[in-house]
Amino acid sequence: MCYNLKMKTLDSIKQRVDLAVSQLHFANQPESLYSPIEYILSLGGKRIRPVLSLIVCDLYSDDIEPVINPALGIEVFHNFTLLHDDLMDAADKRRNKPTVHKVWNANTAILSGDAMLIVAYQLISKTPNEHLKEVLSLFTTTALEICGGQQYDMLFENRLDVTEDEYLEMIRLKTAVLLACSLKTGAIVGGASDKDASLLYDFGINLGLAFQLQDDLLDVYGDPEIFGKNVGGDILCNKKTYLLINALKNANTAQRERLVDWVNKEHFSPEEKIAYFTKMYLELGIKELAENKIKYYYAEAVKCLSQLSVCPSQTQLLKTVCEDLMNRDF
Amino acid sequence: MCYNLKMKTLDSIKQRVDLAVSQLHFANQPESLYSPIEYILSLGGKRIRPVLSLIVCDLYSDDIEPVINPALGIEVFHNFTLLHDDLMDAADKRRNKPTVHKVWNANTAILSGDAMLIVAYQLISKTPNEHLKEVLSLFTTTALEICGGQQYDMLFENRLDVTEDEYLEMIRLKTAVLLACSLKTGAIVGGASDKDASLLYDFGINLGLAFQLQDDLLDVYGDPEIFGKNVGGDILCNKKTYLLINALKNANTAQRERLVDWVNKEHFSPEEKIAYFTKMYLELGIKELAENKIKYYYAEAVKCLSQLSVCPSQTQLLKTVCEDLMNRDF
Repeated sequence: MCYNLKMKTLDSIKQRVDLAVSQLHFANQPESLYSPIEYILSLGGKRIRPVLSLIVCDLYSDDIEPVINPALGIEVFHNFTLLHDDLMDAADKRRNKPTVHKVWNANTAILSGDAMLIVAYQLISKTPNEHLKEVLSLFTTTALEICGGQQYDMLFENRLDVTEDEYLEMIRLKTAVLLACSLKTGAIVGGASDKDASLLYDFGINLGLAFQLQDDLLDVYGDPEIFGKNVGGDILCNKKTYLLINALKNANTAQRERLVDWVNKEHFSPEEKIAYFTKMYLELGIKELAENKIKYYYAEAVKCLSQLSVCPSQTQLLKTVCEDLMNRDF
Repeated sequence: MCYNLKMKTLDSIKQRVDLAVSQLHFANQPESLYSPIEYILSLGGKRIRPVLSLIVCDLYSDDIEPVINPALGIEVFHNFTLLHDDLMDAADKRRNKPTVHKVWNANTAILSGDAMLIVAYQLISKTPNEHLKEVLSLFTTTALEICGGQQYDMLFENRLDVTEDEYLEMIRLKTAVLLACSLKTGAIVGGASDKDASLLYDFGINLGLAFQLQDDLLDVYGDPEIFGKNVGGDILCNKKTYLLINALKNANTAQRERLVDWVNKEHFSPEEKIAYFTKMYLELGIKELAENKIKYYYAEAVKCLSQLSVCPSQTQLLKTVCEDLMNRDF
């Protein structure tokens, strides 16, 4: 079925999202409560989550205006998690600019973040009445899952025995569910069937897992010019990525001992550590393992799309966004 | 008009609130995300906010069950503000027990607090459909006001020129609006008229201001046995209370200089500092000034009650709670 014959272009959807973000209005006082919110939102980002909500709503309805507010709520929530995560991770930079707790201070980061979470709910609450309960409930479940994901991520810092399943569950919670929530919110507000809404949710989960695993891979093998991050950042801070977890699992006793030695070293040459792990990943076939896992989730994502009850031609935009995301071109 | 002829007793309402709090169910995993929420809720407290919601709902409806979830949401939100405020204020104790960031750590306090704010919204979202938008909107406005109040409170720490009006606005935001929100939520869900809902809101604002001003007064003149806090805590940390603000305003040049000297002293005998301020408050008639202000707001609160469209006899319970609160007997 082709529900909506006049589909919007990706550019027009991106423009609609940018306009909506630029029109977000916050109270003026107290200035030091709201300025950090405007600051973090001004740092940009791809706005991928609201864009996905709008694209999906456009699949099922010729009016995307009703999804603007919940889509913005998801974007504000996402930026709230960045604000509080940066504080918890003591990160100095976000998108090459100083983080909120660096520009202001920790207390301002806590309180402005709290206000931001409330603003996110304020926007979600503007969902049209007939879909409000369902959208609210999905958003709340998702938000709690994301807190859980961040907690697991922090707990994993002090563990060397994180399993692949635990890791996949952590990135599902920390990254994938919000993409899935954005897509499903667009489906609910657009009036999709429960089956389509659920397929779009699963599409988001698989896309999110593929995306995060690729992020792990690009940390080691990415072109810093395109990727925008220094190579080996995860290696230097012993982040329990898909790569490290599988290296530790597949290593023989001697290899494992040397890997653990490197993890525990307090003084080392960064280049040497990165080179060592890169070589070990090669020896253990970790790159291929990760690539296969990414391909698997990506294929699962595409499979979800193919089962939607819309014209196959209409899912082209979602596929394009998917590809752009994976190629870091979005 | 007597809307509800079978009014509940205060004891039965308190019991209903305690039961509902004890039945709050949180996810089990990750344990370190949810345990701090259970911990802070287990520290007790008067549960005054949900009790007020239930009392008011009972005024207008013979079924108070529909207000239980939003009332719990307000209580969870209140405890969330305590959790994050304690972290921001670096407070070691809450109700004579170590604060969450002391038992766990700062990151856990941030993240569990965030989860708690989301749980508060989850409970608010369970408001019956016909009142959901109104209750959500009131709650969100109130929650943002409370963040503003906390921000002003922190900003005032570094200022000696806080005016009485600024102070009253700060305590309105930080304390009064949540009491007002609790009362109005009970009115909305109970089906009160807009006029009564608004009068109950104003009743809460006036009661909250009277209560907070009395808190300032009890810091100096209260019996620690009854009040549960050490005398002079606000004086020792130079808190810009109603008393200090008016002492600085009404002092002559010499008195003001000595007061400012005491404020700026880094090394001093606590007893001597408390004795000095207490003497100065007496000389400047500050106690009487505060008492008159409290009486004024209390009378305004009672005036709001007298204008409600319910049987005067039915407001007796609210008056009793008011008196108990002011006498710290609640």
